[in-house]
Amino acid sequence: MTRFTMDQLDTLRAVVDEGGFEAAARRLHMTQSAVSQRIKQLERASGQVLLRRSTPVAPTAAGDVVLRYARQVDLLAAEALSELGGAEPSASPTTLAIAVNADSSATWFLEALAGMPPQLPVVFDLRRADQQHTAALLRSGDVLAAVTSTREAVQGCSSEALGTMRYRAVASPGYRDRWLGGVADVSRLDGAPMLVFDRTDELQHDFVRSAVGYDPRSPRHHVPASADFARAAVLGLGWGMLPEAQAMPEIDAGGLVELAPDRPVDVALFWQRWTLGSPALDALTESVRTTARTALHQRP
Amino acid sequence: MTRFTMDQLDTLRAVVDEGGFEAAARRLHMTQSAVSQRIKQLERASGQVLLRRSTPVAPTAAGDVVLRYARQVDLLAAEALSELGGAEPSASPTTLAIAVNADSSATWFLEALAGMPPQLPVVFDLRRADQQHTAALLRSGDVLAAVTSTREAVQGCSSEALGTMRYRAVASPGYRDRWLGGVADVSRLDGAPMLVFDRTDELQHDFVRSAVGYDPRSPRHHVPASADFARAAVLGLGWGMLPEAQAMPEIDAGGLVELAPDRPVDVALFWQRWTLGSPALDALTESVRTTARTALHQRP
Repeated sequence: MTRFTMDQLDTLRAVVDEGGFEAAARRLHMTQSAVSQRIKQLERASGQVLLRRSTPVAPTAAGDVVLRYARQVDLLAAEALSELGGAEPSASPTTLAIAVNADSSATWFLEALAGMPPQLPVVFDLRRADQQHTAALLRSGDVLAAVTSTREAVQGCSSEALGTMRYRAVASPGYRDRWLGGVADVSRLDGAPMLVFDRTDELQHDFVRSAVGYDPRSPRHHVPASADFARAAVLGLGWGMLPEAQAMPEIDAGGLVELAPDRPVDVALFWQRWTLGSPALDALTESVRTTARTALHQRP
Repeated sequence: MTRFTMDQLDTLRAVVDEGGFEAAARRLHMTQSAVSQRIKQLERASGQVLLRRSTPVAPTAAGDVVLRYARQVDLLAAEALSELGGAEPSASPTTLAIAVNADSSATWFLEALAGMPPQLPVVFDLRRADQQHTAALLRSGDVLAAVTSTREAVQGCSSEALGTMRYRAVASPGYRDRWLGGVADVSRLDGAPMLVFDRTDELQHDFVRSAVGYDPRSPRHHVPASADFARAAVLGLGWGMLPEAQAMPEIDAGGLVELAPDRPVDVALFWQRWTLGSPALDALTESVRTTARTALHQRP
């Protein structure tokens, strides 16, 4: 792949990141036809079509391979430069693309980012880690690392346990009075409105099934943002499983009541990252590890 | 379309909502082969392939037409029953699918849902309204209504102005000291890390361009959840444009400083809804209107 120039690789990344030739041209301060030209050169050099000319423009399978290579080159180059003392303030920082599940992003993960050594010139590109797609994002190099509930390492990645996120079944006092006859009891949840995050969220359903032994026939509110989901519980729209970090302050303040204090649900989280030797990724890994150690439950 | 049975339509909706035959069978308490059978009958009756057997299973263009019809029938039937006094507690409630932009969902929209008359048996299926896709979601009937910045009504929908959401340029005091030399001044933002929500978020970029007259060359953190975006600003990862509802409490508490108090950015929001006569949708519209009147800025 040494036939590719850095300019060509930068252009490919810009087109994919921005979703089109026009936006890429704007970002690179070039004309659109110069962007087109570079992509054509890259496609000639690789002997493959690299981009689907759709809206937004998207990489083909061959495009994914070149993109992954471009991201690796980019990361390593930025870090070599920085090590050589060439990290002028004007140098553009390294982008670390990370997939993170919504509840982690809403509760502890941003603290890990803020805890990075301030002298490292990095910016973060967070992606919503929907369980099914995280492995694909790691494999294609779209992300360098992920907080995920999948333990099995993707090829080329390492995987380490971060601890478990503990969920509590909660509802507002008003909800309990209206739907559960005033009694915070799991056996009364059948048929009462339930909050779910998205189509793949089975946490509430599985909780009821394991608690009472059957599938609940409950109408579902879908609220696909973590903080909004917690707020919907406080507003009494439904009951739901909340991470302790969201549930506990509201329970203490009287905004929520716990439905089954003796039945928390633990979800194990893992940190998967490319094994590529990158100081920025190493530093992030260290900060994630440190933050997770106190934010998540650790096995005794 | 009267050749379709309600059972067939329910099955089609379940397969699309759940993303597969197996999950639909679980939801409907049927065998997977019975689900398959019903979909085949429906496809024979319509003379069209209605589902792409992908993962997840998705409707074809013909499938979208039948789905929209199914949703309309469902909504009207539920409401007719309820009007006839047949709304037993065990009757399954009407689902109102609504697209809502992330900042509205994080700040005022859930209050509108919680403000619905409690006797109406409805649940909400909130979808992230990414500007480009909202029109398509309304057109296909995937959603019945939307909070959107697009004024032009989609065919079959009405559009009304809700007011404007006011954004403030903010950063943490630590960020100001580190990146802006201690001075909260827009002209110093060029090159300093910027928060952006997603690929289509040009709010920060446009703000700088209109304030100082050129495109900022700023590294971008991507944080694709509204509450997390606000938290990232407080943690000092970057500066960003926050809705007043998120910015003001933090400014008062000293967690954020305003970079340009005299330069708020106003984004007009609209309520687009099907013109279908539905009491549930009418009640929601009324509640959205009432909540927006105080939560959003109204023209004098």
